[in-house]
Amino acid sequence: MTGAEILLDTLAAHGVDVCFMNPGTSEMRFVAALDRVPAMRGVLCLFEGVATGAADGYARMTGRPAATLLHLGPGLANGLANLHNARKARSPVVNIVGEHSTQHQRYDAPLSADIAGFARPVSGWVRAVNDVAEMGTAAAEAIAAANEPPGQVATLIVAADVSWTEGGRGWWPSIAKRERARVAEESICRAAARLRQPGAALLLGGHCGSERALAAAGRLHAATGVAVFVERSTPRVACGRGRFQPPVVPYFPEPALAALAGVRTAVLVEAQPPVSFFGYPNTPSWLLPEGCEVLTLAERWQDGTAALEALCAVCGAAPVDWRAEAAAPQIPRGPLTADAIGAIVAARMPAGAIISDELISASAAVLPHLAHAAPHDRLPVTGGSIGQGLPVALGAAMACPERKVIALEADGSAMYTLQALWTMAREQADVLTVIFANRRYQILEIEMQRTGSAMGEAARAAMDIGRPDLDFVKLAEGMGVPASRAATAEEFDRQFGAALAVRGPRLMEAVLG
Amino acid sequence: MTGAEILLDTLAAHGVDVCFMNPGTSEMRFVAALDRVPAMRGVLCLFEGVATGAADGYARMTGRPAATLLHLGPGLANGLANLHNARKARSPVVNIVGEHSTQHQRYDAPLSADIAGFARPVSGWVRAVNDVAEMGTAAAEAIAAANEPPGQVATLIVAADVSWTEGGRGWWPSIAKRERARVAEESICRAAARLRQPGAALLLGGHCGSERALAAAGRLHAATGVAVFVERSTPRVACGRGRFQPPVVPYFPEPALAALAGVRTAVLVEAQPPVSFFGYPNTPSWLLPEGCEVLTLAERWQDGTAALEALCAVCGAAPVDWRAEAAAPQIPRGPLTADAIGAIVAARMPAGAIISDELISASAAVLPHLAHAAPHDRLPVTGGSIGQGLPVALGAAMACPERKVIALEADGSAMYTLQALWTMAREQADVLTVIFANRRYQILEIEMQRTGSAMGEAARAAMDIGRPDLDFVKLAEGMGVPASRAATAEEFDRQFGAALAVRGPRLMEAVLG
Repeated sequence: MTGAEILLDTLAAHGVDVCFMNPGTSEMRFVAALDRVPAMRGVLCLFEGVATGAADGYARMTGRPAATLLHLGPGLANGLANLHNARKARSPVVNIVGEHSTQHQRYDAPLSADIAGFARPVSGWVRAVNDVAEMGTAAAEAIAAANEPPGQVATLIVAADVSWTEGGRGWWPSIAKRERARVAEESICRAAARLRQPGAALLLGGHCGSERALAAAGRLHAATGVAVFVERSTPRVACGRGRFQPPVVPYFPEPALAALAGVRTAVLVEAQPPVSFFGYPNTPSWLLPEGCEVLTLAERWQDGTAALEALCAVCGAAPVDWRAEAAAPQIPRGPLTADAIGAIVAARMPAGAIISDELISASAAVLPHLAHAAPHDRLPVTGGSIGQGLPVALGAAMACPERKVIALEADGSAMYTLQALWTMAREQADVLTVIFANRRYQILEIEMQRTGSAMGEAARAAMDIGRPDLDFVKLAEGMGVPASRAATAEEFDRQFGAALAVRGPRLMEAVLG
Repeated sequence: MTGAEILLDTLAAHGVDVCFMNPGTSEMRFVAALDRVPAMRGVLCLFEGVATGAADGYARMTGRPAATLLHLGPGLANGLANLHNARKARSPVVNIVGEHSTQHQRYDAPLSADIAGFARPVSGWVRAVNDVAEMGTAAAEAIAAANEPPGQVATLIVAADVSWTEGGRGWWPSIAKRERARVAEESICRAAARLRQPGAALLLGGHCGSERALAAAGRLHAATGVAVFVERSTPRVACGRGRFQPPVVPYFPEPALAALAGVRTAVLVEAQPPVSFFGYPNTPSWLLPEGCEVLTLAERWQDGTAALEALCAVCGAAPVDWRAEAAAPQIPRGPLTADAIGAIVAARMPAGAIISDELISASAAVLPHLAHAAPHDRLPVTGGSIGQGLPVALGAAMACPERKVIALEADGSAMYTLQALWTMAREQADVLTVIFANRRYQILEIEMQRTGSAMGEAARAAMDIGRPDLDFVKLAEGMGVPASRAATAEEFDRQFGAALAVRGPRLMEAVLG
């Protein structure tokens, strides 16, 4: 076996069987090996940020790493922004980067670069393989590192000659996958003692956006009166009718400070103490009130869900039926606003849908509607790096081919990694993308207003992405994705219903009035 | 003045008056300051790789740095691949990256990342500014660092609170720009002694693709018989009729080894000893023959052009008229091949055009034709990171608004940074983009054939970017650039002529037969 075959074989033997790739010359042997390791599915992406974002989306939906295959330093560089989001999501990713052959590495060839240097800021684990004898164990180590709780990006840098050299062997013994550690009983008792006190609040993050964890939190809320908040960057949140849906910590510091003003004891469950997204003049970054006690029930690498369930047992918190909480959504008519889209999406979307949420400024108008939608999972931007929405939607669709994926996407954000549409078309991924076309970087206009600066012409121009208008219907069709444009609520409702009725990628440009 | 105003003011005062930007919240004060420092022109890009590639193209045409403005770690990450190319080009770039405010940096906010870590592999100089009192001098230092011969990427990381704080002042005294060092006379005499010996060859790189340097090399070639080669990654090469046009070192090692087989003494003029682009089994990376002497006439930071002219004086090499060398180009008819496009472009393009060359596999067919074209400058990919062609074309057009820019672009490569088209439309940049649509990663097919591997279905799929076909006419129109498609030589000739006759961005999709 060649090193390339050993790598793919080891990955596939351990259940890493999808590879989102944009290979180059140094990765040709891996590509050739795809035909000899049929268990590995190669998914071609036209840009590396699509591959890394898709691996993140895949991991959030399966809990398992996908592999990437990137070309040398620059290929990795193009994938870094979405690896940053994956890092913040604690998604397991086996990030494979080709390197020049060992005897070529001593020269300053055009593509020579500090690959490990690029990788370190986003990776929990980095290893370069320059000997085929190490390929099998290095691949196994990379998988184990990616899966190390809570999950991380493991970057494996493989020299081209390792891939073409015969002689090593695969590494098939099972890798002991470390489970997330249980929370000690005394921590649970300590938290239990606080929940009924005034000002107690649970802050959920990490894996605690799951249906199970939220159900347990809901029971605790009903039984003890404890407030519950969800961290904004929770990688996957179970939402919709019939579920306990605690508020997400607001984006701007002022409403976040107001929401958390009454908290006296913050109990962190796979969450960090809440801080604002950005720092502002004369506004604190730390969002908990002065003197607030911070208690950690579960770290990110611990099993917060089991801890919440143990808390339920200690507190005698019985199951709660939340079905009465949700009102039936109404279909709006008239002008197409973010609010109207939210209402229509909530009314029409099927149960079990996956929402890739890169709404940015439209978020505040849309998300409250989704609370009334059929049960679904929502995948928000975890690291603040925009250009995640479409790649994550692609990865989620590859992970869950039986579920409809709906990407709710801001127009500005869509343009960072629009190439994801082409892979959706090739793979016939069941993704319906809705572009919220307000034709500006509206979040920046809001941020600019917050600075108190008068907006002159040059500043306005920097936030206006009209002039020329982007035509997302043409852009989608140019990559093989059928598309339509809606400018009224009626048009949107009709097109959205029609798009949901078919399988495969579709795009709708919603021109906001 | 606020820190943001000081920064822009200092940049503009020292002639850095264009900023290619994709700002975010932490950069809002810089955007606001654009209205108070009208000498600075802000050019909005929808993706950071467009901004960094444009800064590279701008620098190659002007010799002066442009600024970039990028948003935190992920914004920088998206710009790294083209900064890698700029690093290999030794282009001066003032690379400005916003950072969280100083009091916010201690928290692990979603966008917190190791910005300096991302920056180091591509930057010759990195500095973080966390105090407004340092802003002016830091900006001046960044400009001086970018201009340090031969030129480099200088990354300036500016905390958001520095930008909003009043109190510092600009830095207006002139920055002593270090000229490139002269080559010592003894080095010139030592080289002169070798030029008439059998097997002597000049290897030109760096700034020695200029008209002046090539003219001097041509005189030496005519007077002494010395062979002359141009390094493949020379950032800017003066080409076309009436100029001395030495061969470029071939891409693949076998023809490169053959071309250099007779070299006994290689004289490097701002060039590196030639090595192959990639390493291959049983093929040397080092391309000079065994026992070949390597002599450095000029390092990259020295003035190779003056050294070549001094050599001319020592060798008594008189001016040469190369006009007779070039045959008149013929207009082909029939099927549209890369060869036919090369002939038409060469026949039709105006004098003084700038060619942004990201041809990849079509290169071998097209470049020989351009030797017969009107005098022009060619900007090749310097660092092997594709996705450079359109951004560099944009930057060159902003640098030289009176010259027609023609981007010769492979379809696969175009998809990495296609967002450049939108900025071309907004700025009405005079760029004619020709997409060579062979609908595959053809260079990878060639590389795969070189491995000797049988290409199975999975491998074929990884190189085939048809399924679905990309429709570049729709993609261009979707970003506001008028476009057409040509499938025969006649269609191409007609459309190319029409596109040259108008100012502003145009795109042609050339569907290769």
